[in-house]
Parts: sequence; structure tokens; C-alpha cells
Amino acid sequence: MNIVDIINKKRLNKELSHDELDFAFNGYLNGTVKDYQMSSLLMAICINGMTDNEIFDLTGIFIDSGDVLDLSSIPGIKVDKHSTGGVGDKVTLIIGPIVSSCGVPVPKMSGRGLGHTGGTIDKLESIKGFNTNLTEEEFINQIKSIGFAVTGQTKNLCPMDKVIYSLRDVTGTVASIPLIATSIMSKKIAGGADKILLDVKVGDGALMKTMEDAKKLASIMEEIGRRYHRDVTCEITDMNVPLGHNIGNSLEVIEAMDTLKGRKGRLYDLCLDISSHMISISKGISYEEAKKEALDAIESGRAYNKFLEFVKWQGGDINTLEVSKDTIEIRSTKEGTLKNIRALALGELSVSLGAGRRTKEDSIDHSVGIVVEKEIGDIIKKDDLLATLYVKDKNLSLNPDDYFEIV
Amino acid sequence: MNIVDIINKKRLNKELSHDELDFAFNGYLNGTVKDYQMSSLLMAICINGMTDNEIFDLTGIFIDSGDVLDLSSIPGIKVDKHSTGGVGDKVTLIIGPIVSSCGVPVPKMSGRGLGHTGGTIDKLESIKGFNTNLTEEEFINQIKSIGFAVTGQTKNLCPMDKVIYSLRDVTGTVASIPLIATSIMSKKIAGGADKILLDVKVGDGALMKTMEDAKKLASIMEEIGRRYHRDVTCEITDMNVPLGHNIGNSLEVIEAMDTLKGRKGRLYDLCLDISSHMISISKGISYEEAKKEALDAIESGRAYNKFLEFVKWQGGDINTLEVSKDTIEIRSTKEGTLKNIRALALGELSVSLGAGRRTKEDSIDHSVGIVVEKEIGDIIKKDDLLATLYVKDKNLSLNPDDYFEIV
Repeated sequence: MNIVDIINKKRLNKELSHDELDFAFNGYLNGTVKDYQMSSLLMAICINGMTDNEIFDLTGIFIDSGDVLDLSSIPGIKVDKHSTGGVGDKVTLIIGPIVSSCGVPVPKMSGRGLGHTGGTIDKLESIKGFNTNLTEEEFINQIKSIGFAVTGQTKNLCPMDKVIYSLRDVTGTVASIPLIATSIMSKKIAGGADKILLDVKVGDGALMKTMEDAKKLASIMEEIGRRYHRDVTCEITDMNVPLGHNIGNSLEVIEAMDTLKGRKGRLYDLCLDISSHMISISKGISYEEAKKEALDAIESGRAYNKFLEFVKWQGGDINTLEVSKDTIEIRSTKEGTLKNIRALALGELSVSLGAGRRTKEDSIDHSVGIVVEKEIGDIIKKDDLLATLYVKDKNLSLNPDDYFEIV
Repeated sequence: MNIVDIINKKRLNKELSHDELDFAFNGYLNGTVKDYQMSSLLMAICINGMTDNEIFDLTGIFIDSGDVLDLSSIPGIKVDKHSTGGVGDKVTLIIGPIVSSCGVPVPKMSGRGLGHTGGTIDKLESIKGFNTNLTEEEFINQIKSIGFAVTGQTKNLCPMDKVIYSLRDVTGTVASIPLIATSIMSKKIAGGADKILLDVKVGDGALMKTMEDAKKLASIMEEIGRRYHRDVTCEITDMNVPLGHNIGNSLEVIEAMDTLKGRKGRLYDLCLDISSHMISISKGISYEEAKKEALDAIESGRAYNKFLEFVKWQGGDINTLEVSKDTIEIRSTKEGTLKNIRALALGELSVSLGAGRRTKEDSIDHSVGIVVEKEIGDIIKKDDLLATLYVKDKNLSLNPDDYFEIV
């Protein structure tokens, strides 16, 4: 077998066997297949797609590249939740504390930023001292003790996904439904949870731009779940506008805390909904009963206190959150009604401010970002403040129309 | 502009502008675009193709990456010949001496091996001392003095092609008509010849597998020639069986010498035909007149002597040609008529013996290769010798049916 033949086969849109996928991907992991060969294969996969068999085989190869977490020592039905990401998505930081403070264990493994969509690990690293590299023992211990922990992929869990994920990020090969499904499901399965709730985002600011694609992704992931004996539930949610008001790492942690303190809005409603689903799935109670529990966790302050406890357990000092002092204001140049907030454009803007990375080697500035000051439907007057940018470089001229549609 | 956006655009099959192609390819040349990004872009180009505008723009970018040779100081109409390569293709080593010994200057720039097809430069390096890296001055001087010179791409001539060519070779992105056309034509145009004869090979052992593809490639290259004011003539020739009997570097040099000494066969006929075309184009005489001159050059021994003169001028010692002493025989297991010799399979076998390279870093063994002992149409008896492999490792078991079709 040789890698060039395998790439050529996929270029010609022929199905790769388990052995060929294994040769290519494990070869990349152990260095006999070069990154420039893997990226070429990934692009062929992006354009030509994968068959169901290829997807199941590749998921297995990803899982087998590392350990599978054994969470059986933690009592209760463990529920993992995954969102396919979007601009300003800080949902994990909100639902983790809510659900775990209702007694449902939430073991959460997260990734780093992917193009214009941020990553939970990057967001948590805004907090000085926060350890995003827990050992398996630390991770399990923490869930047993406080019910909630977030860690980056540990070294021995899906190491394949880690290297493929960062290569895709910088080679224009992110937007592949089979590769997205494989990446998500291999991590979820290796992560050891009993039940998995998948939040597939659709819209301008999400990886899935159309409802058709979102449904396709959801159905492939449910099918992978069946093949690997995990109970998978998919929700498809709208991501045409940013999730909440804040985009950027520190700014999103701050908004998550505000939401846990009870600040109402679209983000609050979404998190309450997902939390209720997770509690219902785990406890085997109705959605309405679960929702009551979730609401009580927020209103009593237990969820917010859980967040503080969680940060402290992972070594973080919440008082260290830093937001850049230099700001730029985006003000309206016209009058009307705010019809659309362009999530994708704001996500890209946030990357260009330094909040996200474009190449594997890029570092992130946690203090920069964007606060959107208006909501869709708001009446806008000339010179109204639409957004505040927290920046390091004040030399930036922007056209409000690129981000806000006022009619 | 950023490279990931450009790759994504091509992935989605949208036309890239001159500036975007320039950003990507010159970025790769100067190191700001990584090889794993370029290979991903190349794969997207392979699968999605290129528009005519993209092809012309990219050819220009390739040419502008280095110098354009000025051959005007050499008297006469300079004719360059290019073959799209195939298994056992040693045509350049034969027609160069024939045509130049008829007074037509042949400035020849050649490449290294590309997958299962060998490269003229690799073949010449079988001769100890042979300098394949002439300076521009040495190159022009030699053509003025003896009418024929072969060099690898000089450092300043299409450096872009050099790096892209070796990346394509190892990333399954060779089989792209637009990329092949761009690579060939940029080198030919920068090479400075007045007229260009292109020998497009078609068939199992060639880069173009079908007549349709060969015609497409020929027409794109003629169009590029028109855009850049060069007179381009294309011939399409069959490459379903290997060209001549020998495959492998030293072995092919030996067969070229035998042919120049007058050994008849399909290779002899083809070389006589191409030589006649080149002499006819350059001198403005009829094909028949040109053919008489070419025949005389061979029969008088002038062509063979020109080859020896050419090797000596470039520092080579022809007595150093080495062929491996260990051999493996492929013998027939059945009786019948030899219906087909599988060029592609033999080319791949030759690579696996060590005569070609699979990754950029591979080195070549010049002494190994294959001598095909039979011709199509021969009557074959059981145990007849079909081919002799010259090898370094005698532990190899082969199925004759993979290479020879006997019915």
C-alpha cells in the first residue's frame, strides 16, 4: 500500500477500504504520511464526500487511536452535550453548571477555536491559572466531587482527532459533513458518556449553512451512535445571528456568568432548553419537570455558584478576566429597524481582532472581542451604538453595513 | 487576502482571480503559504478544474517566478520538444543527437521522475560525472558549440514549477490537465525556444489515459502558446505499451545508445518521426526531406557520435553506466500470443524496485530496472522469458499475468 495511490483513489471518488483509511490516518499520526499528503487527501474527501462505510470505519480509527474513558465509577447516567459551534457560542459554560447542579454528571471534553467559531477551551483559558489539561484521574475525580469538569482532549483520547482537526483548520477542509461527524462522534464515544445530546447549529454563522446540511449531519451522527451503541439525540438550532451579545474569549466568559446570574434573552432561553433536555434524558423525567429543576438551579443561585466552584477546582482565578481597555465604536449611519446581525462577518472580524487563529501556530489574545449592543427588531436611530470592539490596535475603519442590516 | 479563504473558494469551485492565484502560489514560493495548504489547494484544482483565465494567469505566474532564457545569440530557429512522459520514455536522448547533428539547435530542459514515469534528468544521472545543472552561460555555449544540451531547470528558471512539481508528485495531484499544461508551457516559454513540438502521450502507461484527455491537454497547450506568442505543434502518440524494451535509468540510456546505433523497432520509428518533424519545422523543409536528413544522421553514425560528444561536454563518463548484477526472471506460465504489455504496472514495478521516487526525499537507484524481452504479437511458449528484472533485493515474487496478457 502507498499513500499516493490512496490519495489518487479518493481523488477519483472511489471508496477507500478500512485498511486504506487506516494506512493513511495512522500513517499521518506516526509520521510516515506527511501533512502535505494528509491535507491533499482531506480536500479530496471534502469535495468527493465519504460513503457510510468510510465514515464508520474512520470513526473507529479515530476512537482506536487512543483510550476510551471509563466513567462507570461515576454514579448516574452521564450526559454529554456537544454543539457544532458558532459565533459567540458559550453554551457549554452555562449548561454545565445548571445541569450538574441538578445532580446530573456532565463530563465535557472541548476543543479549540476553528476558524471564525470559537472554542470552549480557548474561552476558559481567559481565566488565569485555569487548567484545561486534566488527567483522566483528575477529570473523573472532579465529576464525582462537583458533577462538572471541562478538559481539552487528553493526550490519550482521540489523538488522531487532535492532529486532523488542527490541520483541517488551516487547509480549507473544515466544511465537510463526514469529517465533522467523524470528529465529533469519535470524541463523544471515546469520552465515555452514556447519552449524548447534539446541538447542530444551522445558519450564516455556523458550520452548517443550510437546514438540509444540518439534517444530513444530524442523521449521520445518530447513525454512528447506533453503530457504536450510544444513545444520541440531535437538536437543530438557529445560528443566523451570534449567540448572545459577546464574541471573544474573556467577553464570552463574562456573558456566561451574567446568564447564570439570570440575565434573560435568547441565550438564556436556549440554555434553559438544552439543560432541560439533558436533565430529562438522564433522569428519565418529563421535559417540563426537568425544566422546573433547571429554572430553580438558576434562580436559587446554585448554578452560578457551581460555575465558581468549577473554576476554582480547575485552578482558575475568576478575578483575572481581562478585557482590552481600547475600544472602537460601530455606530449606525442610517435609521430603521435592525433586520439582521451577520454572525459570520462578526466572527471573521473577531478573528482579525486577534480572538481566533488562522494558522496552527497562531496565538490568541483573550482580551479582545466584540459586544453587540442591539438585538434584531430594535429601532435604530442615526449614530446609535451598534457594537463596541475591544481592540489592541485602534487603527481600524469599518463599514457598519457589513455587520448590521438596517432597513 | 488569506490563504484559507482562497482554498475554500476553490473547494467551492469558484474562479480564482489573478491576485488570489498570485497570493497562493508566490506565498508558497516564499514560505508564507505552507506545503500542507498548497497541496490542499492543488487537490481542489485537480478535482474542480481550472477556467481558461485561471490557466493563463497561473502560467504567467509560473513564468514570472524566474527568468526567461534569451537564446537569440544562437543562430537558427531553435526547436524544443517535450513529451508528457510515459513508461520507458527515453526519446529525448535519441532525438536530441539526431536533430542537432542535422544542424538544428536543440535547447532541452528536463525534469525528474514523476510517479511511475521516469525523468530525463534522472536517466542522465546514471552516467557518473554528468552535470545536469548547467548555468545559463554553459547551456547557451554548449548549444552554440555542439547544437544540443540538456539541463535540469536552472535555479532561476520557473522556480515555481520546480517546487509545485515535486509537491504534486507526492500528494496525488499529478493527474490534472490544467496543472500539467501550466507546468509544461511555463517551462517551454521560459526556456526561450522559437518553436515547440509537444508529444502528448495517451494510454495506460501515460499521464493521459484517454484520447479525449490527450486532445484536451493538447488544445489547452496550443492556446497557451498563442497567448504567449510561441508556435506550438502537438502530436498525440500511443503509450499503451512501454516505449522500447528497457525501463529504469541506466538501462534506458543503454537502449537510447542502441537505437542511435541503428537498432530498429517501434522506438526507432517514433524517434525518426519526431526528429523529422523538428527538422522540418526548423528548416522550413518538407517532412520527407527532413526524414532523409534524419536517416542519414543515424546511418552515418553522426547521431551516435553527437550523443557521445554531448555526454563528454557535460562531464559524463559513458563507461560508468552500471546495471545491477542480481536479476530476477519473469517467465511465462502459459502458452499463447502476447496481446498486451501493461505499461502502468511495469512502471509501478520499476518504482518499487527503486528506479523511481514516491516522496520528495526518496533517492533513486540508477542500476535497477526492467528489460522486456518480448514484443506484442510474439508467440509465447510455457517458461519463455518475458522480462528480466535488474534488482538489489532478490526476494520478490511476481505474477506474470499482472504485466503480460497472453491469450
